[in-house]
Amino acid sequence: MKKFVYLFEEGDASRRDLLGGKGANLAEMTNLGMPVPYGFTVTTEACTQYYDDGEKINQDIIDQIFEGLKKVEAKAGKKFGDKNDPFLVSVRSGARASMPGMMDTILNLGLNDVSVEGLANLTGNPRFAYDCYRRFIQMYSDVVMGVNKSFFEKIIDELKEEKNVKLDTELTADDLKELIARFKQVYRDDQGVDFPQDPKVQLIGAVEAVFRSWNNDRAIVYRRMNDIPGSWGTAVNVQSMVFGNMGDTSGTGVAFTRDPSTGEKRLYGEYLMNAQGEDVVAGVRTPQTIDQLKETNPEVYEQFVNIANSLENHYCDMQDMEFTIERGKLFMLQTRNGKRTAQAAIKIAVDLVAEGKITEEEAVLRVDPKQLDALLHPQFDAKALKAAQAIATGLPASPGAACGKIAFTAEEATARVKAGEKVILVRLETSPEDIEGMAASEGILTVRGGMTSHAAVVARGMGTCCVAGCGDIVINEENMTMSIGDKTFTTDDYISIDGSTGKVYAGAIPTVEASISGDFDTLMGWADRVRTLKVRTNADTPQDAIQAAKFGAQGIGLCRTEHMFFAEDRISAMRRMIVASTVEERREALDVLQPMQRDDFIGLYEAMGSYPVVIRFLDPPLHEFVPHKDSEIQALADEMNLDFATLKNTIDGLHEFNPMLGHRGCRLAVTYPEIAEMQTKAVIEAAIAVNKKGLNVVPEIMIPLVGEIKELKYVKDVVSATADKLIKEHGVDLKYQIGTMIEVPRAALTADEIAKEAEFFSFGTNDLTQMTFGFSRDDAAKFLDIYYKKKIFESDPFAKVDQIGVGKLMKMAVKDGRETRPQLTCGICGEHGGDPSTVEFCHNIGLNYVSCSPYRVPIARLAAAQAAIKDKRSK
Amino acid sequence: MKKFVYLFEEGDASRRDLLGGKGANLAEMTNLGMPVPYGFTVTTEACTQYYDDGEKINQDIIDQIFEGLKKVEAKAGKKFGDKNDPFLVSVRSGARASMPGMMDTILNLGLNDVSVEGLANLTGNPRFAYDCYRRFIQMYSDVVMGVNKSFFEKIIDELKEEKNVKLDTELTADDLKELIARFKQVYRDDQGVDFPQDPKVQLIGAVEAVFRSWNNDRAIVYRRMNDIPGSWGTAVNVQSMVFGNMGDTSGTGVAFTRDPSTGEKRLYGEYLMNAQGEDVVAGVRTPQTIDQLKETNPEVYEQFVNIANSLENHYCDMQDMEFTIERGKLFMLQTRNGKRTAQAAIKIAVDLVAEGKITEEEAVLRVDPKQLDALLHPQFDAKALKAAQAIATGLPASPGAACGKIAFTAEEATARVKAGEKVILVRLETSPEDIEGMAASEGILTVRGGMTSHAAVVARGMGTCCVAGCGDIVINEENMTMSIGDKTFTTDDYISIDGSTGKVYAGAIPTVEASISGDFDTLMGWADRVRTLKVRTNADTPQDAIQAAKFGAQGIGLCRTEHMFFAEDRISAMRRMIVASTVEERREALDVLQPMQRDDFIGLYEAMGSYPVVIRFLDPPLHEFVPHKDSEIQALADEMNLDFATLKNTIDGLHEFNPMLGHRGCRLAVTYPEIAEMQTKAVIEAAIAVNKKGLNVVPEIMIPLVGEIKELKYVKDVVSATADKLIKEHGVDLKYQIGTMIEVPRAALTADEIAKEAEFFSFGTNDLTQMTFGFSRDDAAKFLDIYYKKKIFESDPFAKVDQIGVGKLMKMAVKDGRETRPQLTCGICGEHGGDPSTVEFCHNIGLNYVSCSPYRVPIARLAAAQAAIKDKRSK
Repeated sequence: MKKFVYLFEEGDASRRDLLGGKGANLAEMTNLGMPVPYGFTVTTEACTQYYDDGEKINQDIIDQIFEGLKKVEAKAGKKFGDKNDPFLVSVRSGARASMPGMMDTILNLGLNDVSVEGLANLTGNPRFAYDCYRRFIQMYSDVVMGVNKSFFEKIIDELKEEKNVKLDTELTADDLKELIARFKQVYRDDQGVDFPQDPKVQLIGAVEAVFRSWNNDRAIVYRRMNDIPGSWGTAVNVQSMVFGNMGDTSGTGVAFTRDPSTGEKRLYGEYLMNAQGEDVVAGVRTPQTIDQLKETNPEVYEQFVNIANSLENHYCDMQDMEFTIERGKLFMLQTRNGKRTAQAAIKIAVDLVAEGKITEEEAVLRVDPKQLDALLHPQFDAKALKAAQAIATGLPASPGAACGKIAFTAEEATARVKAGEKVILVRLETSPEDIEGMAASEGILTVRGGMTSHAAVVARGMGTCCVAGCGDIVINEENMTMSIGDKTFTTDDYISIDGSTGKVYAGAIPTVEASISGDFDTLMGWADRVRTLKVRTNADTPQDAIQAAKFGAQGIGLCRTEHMFFAEDRISAMRRMIVASTVEERREALDVLQPMQRDDFIGLYEAMGSYPVVIRFLDPPLHEFVPHKDSEIQALADEMNLDFATLKNTIDGLHEFNPMLGHRGCRLAVTYPEIAEMQTKAVIEAAIAVNKKGLNVVPEIMIPLVGEIKELKYVKDVVSATADKLIKEHGVDLKYQIGTMIEVPRAALTADEIAKEAEFFSFGTNDLTQMTFGFSRDDAAKFLDIYYKKKIFESDPFAKVDQIGVGKLMKMAVKDGRETRPQLTCGICGEHGGDPSTVEFCHNIGLNYVSCSPYRVPIARLAAAQAAIKDKRSK
Repeated sequence: MKKFVYLFEEGDASRRDLLGGKGANLAEMTNLGMPVPYGFTVTTEACTQYYDDGEKINQDIIDQIFEGLKKVEAKAGKKFGDKNDPFLVSVRSGARASMPGMMDTILNLGLNDVSVEGLANLTGNPRFAYDCYRRFIQMYSDVVMGVNKSFFEKIIDELKEEKNVKLDTELTADDLKELIARFKQVYRDDQGVDFPQDPKVQLIGAVEAVFRSWNNDRAIVYRRMNDIPGSWGTAVNVQSMVFGNMGDTSGTGVAFTRDPSTGEKRLYGEYLMNAQGEDVVAGVRTPQTIDQLKETNPEVYEQFVNIANSLENHYCDMQDMEFTIERGKLFMLQTRNGKRTAQAAIKIAVDLVAEGKITEEEAVLRVDPKQLDALLHPQFDAKALKAAQAIATGLPASPGAACGKIAFTAEEATARVKAGEKVILVRLETSPEDIEGMAASEGILTVRGGMTSHAAVVARGMGTCCVAGCGDIVINEENMTMSIGDKTFTTDDYISIDGSTGKVYAGAIPTVEASISGDFDTLMGWADRVRTLKVRTNADTPQDAIQAAKFGAQGIGLCRTEHMFFAEDRISAMRRMIVASTVEERREALDVLQPMQRDDFIGLYEAMGSYPVVIRFLDPPLHEFVPHKDSEIQALADEMNLDFATLKNTIDGLHEFNPMLGHRGCRLAVTYPEIAEMQTKAVIEAAIAVNKKGLNVVPEIMIPLVGEIKELKYVKDVVSATADKLIKEHGVDLKYQIGTMIEVPRAALTADEIAKEAEFFSFGTNDLTQMTFGFSRDDAAKFLDIYYKKKIFESDPFAKVDQIGVGKLMKMAVKDGRETRPQLTCGICGEHGGDPSTVEFCHNIGLNYVSCSPYRVPIARLAAAQAAIKDKRSK
C-alpha cells in the first residue's frame, strides 16, 4: 500500500517532490531538533490520486490521515474535539514550488461548540477561545465551503453597530458568542446543513479544499507564468496549533536571514505580540522590527538567532522563517529559501561563494534568469510608485518603466520627440511602418494584441518598455484623445507605464536608471565559464547590435533585413520595387536600395567585430510594405506617375487570404530572384569593405521559410553565382556561408535533405510553432485564454517552446541534419531564444547557440549556464 | 565505364527504364526478327548525366555515340556524309513513358551540300533529294537551334509567289535548290554561322536537343499532370532512314491492333503512299484506311498483319505501330501499347482475359484509374464538339461537360433553375454560401482559383462539371455581362464548358450521358476482389451518399456538417448562434438547428444502410457564416432586433488575420461546448431513430483540427457525457465511436498520445499539407506555377500527397497511433483520397480506407486494387 501520510519526523528536506516545500522543511527542522509543533504531511501523490479518482479522496488516504492524526494526538497528549483540552490543528497547502495562487491556511481546526468551552476553560480566556472559534468558522466557510466572505463581514459590522463599538477587539466574549451563533446561521442558510461539529469531517473537508485549490484559476495562471507543471499536485500540512495570541508573552513573526531587497547580511524581519499570523498582515497594529525582540525578550531572541543561523548554514541559502511564541516558548512554523529581488539574489549568491558556503556553479543556479530583466531596464522610483494608483492594467509585454506625454501615431511620436518631448506611443495595435515612432518613444501602450504581438516583439527587441492588450483603453482617433473609465486624456497629458507589471498610471512617475553592479559581472563571468551554448542576438540596426554586445552577445543570430525597408527614405523605392511590372523596373528600384542596405550591413559588421552575423533575406509578404488606404494609394500613384486604378489593382492583387501561409520567405526570392541578387550584393560588398579595414567577416546568409530542398538550392544558386562573381571582380578572398531557417514543419521533416545544401540551420520557432499547432499567434490570442482556463494548455507556446510537438521536430531536424553534415551549426532565432526553459531545451538537444533580443542576452547566458550545470550533474 | 549506347540488337523490352519505351521496343522487335531499320539508343542515363554535367554531353558519351554510329554504318553499308551513298538517320526522343510534350523527330539527318547530290544520284530523283534536304534544314534549325519557324514559312510563301505556284509539290528541283540556299542564309543571319555541314556535328546537336526538350515547359506540365518524375530523363533513338516518299511503291502509316476508341478487335489504321510521316499528319492528302492496303499491296499487307498479330501476342496488349514501305519493302519504325479511350481500355482488358492472354489481375492493372472519370460524367457529343471552337481555357477542375445560359450569382442560378432554365454559374470565385446555386447549376466556371479552390472541391464532390481559374474572362457585375477577348456575353447567352479539358465554348453543345457498360462492372468486380483498402465517400447529403453507394462506396468517410448550415432555412439560426452574447442565447439558436441536423443524419444513415458513417463536427471559422456587407448586416440586425453598430462590432470581432490558422475546428467546440452538445444530440437521436427501424448504425463522431490530446479529451468528454445521457434516457443500447482528424502536424507528431483518446484517425491531408508546407492552397496558387516552371515542385501537393514530408507525418502517425491502440482504424478524407498515386501510398502505409468524393469512388477502387497487386508482386 502506498504511503500517503508522513509524520514530520519521517520526512526530510530531500523529499520535496513528495512532501512539498513546506512539509519537507518542517520535517527537516523537526529532525534538526528545532522546536516545531507536531504534525504530518499528506503527500502530493495523494493530491494527484484525488484528481485521478475524479476529485474524490479515497478511503485509503482518509484512513492514513486519521492514523497520522492519532499518532500526533498521542504526542501532544490531546484529543480532537476534547471538551477539556481539545487538540487543534492548522491545515496548510504546500507544493513543491511556492505557489501564492493556492489556498494558504486554515487555523484553529478542531473547534466546535464543545471544544471551544474546553479551550476557554483551559486558557482561562473565554474571549480568546470564542475569537478562535469565530475565525475558524469564517475561514472554513469561505475557503472550504465557498460561502461568500462578505456575508460574515456584514454580520460583524452589524454587531459592532448594535454594540456601538468600532474595533473588533472591543467586542466582548459574549458578543463573540453571539457572533458565532449568527455565523452558524449564515452557514446553515447557505449550505442547507449545520456547520460541521465533527473535527474529522472538518479535517477531511480542509484537506480536500487544499487539493481543490491546486486547480483554481489563480493557481493555473501562476503556474503558467512560472513554468510549474499541473501534474505536480500539492501536499497538505496538518500541524498542531500554537497560539501567538494567548496574551502578552505570546507573539508571532516572520524574518529573513538576509535583507531580501538588498541582499545585505543581517537578520531582517518583524513581529507582533499577542497576535495570530493574519494580524501581522492586516496592518491594524504596526509590527516591531526583529531587533526590538532582543530588548523585550532576549532569551527567545537569542534562541531564534541561533536557529536562523543554523538554518541558513544548513540550507546554504537565505532563509525566510515564520515563528510563533506561545507563552514565552518559541515555535518554528516554517522555513524556506526566501524570495528576493534580482539585486539581492545576485549579491547573496556572490556573498555565499565568498563565505565559502556554496560553489560558483551553485551560485549560478541560485539566480532566476527571468529576474535579471529588472536589472537591465529603468524602473519607477520606489517611493513615487507607492503613492501612485494604477488606472488600468494590460499585459507586461516588454519590461521597464517609462513616462511621457501621449502620442497617438508613430509620425506624431517621431516629430514630437525631435522637438524635444518625451512621449508614450498609444496605439490600437502597431504595424511595421510604426517602427521609427516606436523607437523614438519612451514606451509603447497598445489596446489589442498579446505577449507576442508586433508591438511586444519589437519593443522587447528594442529594450523599450511596452504594455500590450490594455483593453480598458478606448481611443478616439478623431479627437486625438483616449479614455479609461470616465477619465479622458489628451496629447498634453502625461501617463506612466510599467512593462514589467502591465500597469498604467495617470501622470508622470519619475524613473531610475538600471544599474548593473560588480556582483552582476562576477556572476555572469561564472555563468559564461560553465556554459557551452553560445548566445547571439537578434538585431536589425547597429544600435541594437552595440547594445547586445554590451550585454555579452556573441554575434548576430538574426538580422531581419525587411525592417530596414520601412525607413522614410527607403519605403518609396521598396514600393516601386513591389509594384514593378517588369524585371527591369524591379531592378531599377532595387538598385536604389542596394547601397543603403550595404551601409546597414557595414554598420552591423563593425558593431559585431569578429563575431558572426547572420543576415536573413527578405521575409514578409509584400503587401505589408504598400499602402492600403485610397488616399495613400493616390499619393503613391502620383509619385510613381501611375494612374490610381492601375496601382490599386496591383495592390489589391497582393491581397492574401492567409498572409502567414502566403507569398513570403524564400518564395519571394524564387519568384523575384533579383531581390536575392540585390541583397547578396549588399552583403558581400559590405563584407569586402569592412575586411579591407582589417575585420575578418564571414557573412552568413540565411534563406527563410524553406520547405523543400529544391527551393533552397534554387535560391542558393542565385546567391552564390552573384557572390562569387562579385568576389572575383573585387579580386579578394572572401568566405561566406548559406544556411536556412527551419521554420516550416516540412523543413524539419526533410532536414537530412535540406542539410545537403544548408551550411547552417536556425530554428524559427515562431513560425514553426504556428504551423505545427496550426494556429497563428495573432488569431490564437482569441482562444488561448479559454485553453488555459480549461487546462488544455499550461503555458503559452509562443513564449516557451512546446517541447513535445515542436520540440520533436527540432530534435529530428538536428539529428537528421547532422547525419548528413556532421559539423552543421544549429541555432534558434525565434522569440523563444530568450526564454530560460527553452534555452535549457536547446542545450539539451545540442544546439550551438540561441539568439534573442538584446535585453534578453544576459538572461539567455545565465539560463545556458544553468542548463550546462544541470546537464553535467545529471550525468 | 558505363554503357551509354546500345545497338538495337543489344537491348530488349525489359530495359525500358534505360532505353525508353521506343528504344526498348525497337530492340525487342529487332530481336524478334522483324524488319527494323538499323540503329542504336542513347540511354536515359546519358540524359541524366547531361543534366548532372551542367547541360553538357561529355566526351565519353560522344565517343560511344560515334562508336555506335560506326557499327550501324557498317551494317547498312553506308557512310555518314558520303557523296555517293550517304548514310542518313532519324533522331527521336523516347522516355520511359510516352511524353507528347517533348521533341519528337528529326528526319534526314546526315544531309549536307555534298551528300544531297549523292542521294539525288542514287535515287535518280533530285527533287526528292532536295526536298529531303530543305525539310532537314527547316527541322534542324527550328528544333535543334531554336530558329523561328515562321522565317522559313515566309520564304516558302515568297518563293511560291515568285514562281506563281500554289502547292509545295509544284516547286521544281531547281526551285528547291533555291529554297535551300535561302534557308541557309536565314540560318546564317540568325545564328551567325553557317548551317553545319558535318553530319557528326548535326548528330550531337540533335541528341542534345532531345535531352534539352526533356525540360521544356510543355514536358514539365505533362509530367506534372501524369505523375512522371523529372529524374527519369529521356533516351534518344538514332535510326537508319527509310523513305516512304521514294515514289508510288513507297509509303508510310500508323495502325492499331484494336480500335482505340471502342476496343473492338480489328486492325485499325491509315497510311499514305509516297509520303513521309509528317505528310500523314499535315492533312493535305487524305490517308487511306489500312484495309485498302490489302487490295493495293497484298503481300506487304499480309506481312504487316502477321507482324501486328505477333506483336500483340508478344506484348499481350493492343499495339500502336508505325511503319514505312520503301520501294515495296516493309519497315517497322515503332510499336507501343496504344493509347485508348476509357471505354476501349476496359473492353480490351476484359477481352484479353476472355482470350486467355492475361489474368484478371493483369486486366486490373491495364486501366488507368484516372481515365474512369470520362465514363462517369456526361461528355459532349463528339461530332458537335468537332465543329466547336474553344474561346477560352481554364483548369479542368471537375470532369464532365455541360451547357446552359450564364448566371452570375448563386441566387440567380437557383431561381432560374427553379423556373426551368439550365444555367452555367459564372463567378469570380465561389464561397460556401453559393452551395445551393452551385448544386442547381449544370456546370461552374470561375475566373480565379486553382484545382483545389472552393469551386473545384465542391464541384468534384457534387460530380458537377467545373472549369476553374479561367483568367481570360472579365466579369462586369454591374451590367451582368462577361467578356472574353472582344466578345461579350449576357445572361441570355449559352456557353458550354468541358471540365475534363478546361475548355470553354460559345453556344450550346449537346452532351451525351455517361454509360457504364457490363465490362466496367466485370473489371471493377475483379478490382474489388483483390483490393484490401476500403473505399468510402465524402458526402454531406443523402443524394451524394446514394450516388456514392451506386459507385461502390463502403461508407461515408467524411460528412462535413457545416455544409448543412448554409441552407436558406438554417443560416439565420446559425447566424443567431454565432452572434449570441450569452450561452443561453446560443443554446436557443442551437435548439432550432438540432432537429434539422438530426434529420440530415437520418437521411445519411438510411442512404448508407449498414455501412459506417463518419460525421465531422463543425469546422470552419464562424465568420464564414455571417454577412460582411453593411446592407446585409443591417438586414440581419433588423431580423434579430439588434442595432446595426452592435452587430457590426460583433461581426468585425470575428475577423481573423489568417482564418486557416484561427478559431476553427475543435477550437470552436472547446470555446462553445454547447455546439458539440447539439451536434452530438443530433447524431445520437438520428441513430436511435434509424436503429428502431431495423438498421444497426454505429455513428463515428470525428473531432477536427486536434493538435493536443487534452483538446480531444475535453471535447470527447462533452460528447460522451451528452451521448451517454441521451442513450440512457432512451433506454436503448447504442454504440458509438469518437475519433479525430489528423490534419495538424502536431497531431501526427503526438499520435501515440492522441490514440489514447481517439478511437479512429482520419488524415485531413488538405490542412496537413497546408501546415506542413506552410502555405495555404488559396494563396499558393499565386506562386505554384513558378515553382513548377523552376522545377522546384513536380506535382501539385494539394492533388497528390507529398509522400516525402506530409507522407512522413502520416507514416509516423499510423505507426505511433497503432502502438498505443493496435486496432486503430486509419483512413484519409482529404481531397487526395481520390488520387490514384495517393491511394497507392495509403495502401502501402497500412491505412484501412480512403474516402473521396462520390465520382472518384470507382477511381479509388481501381487504384486500391492496383496498389494491392503491385504490393503482392513486390513481396
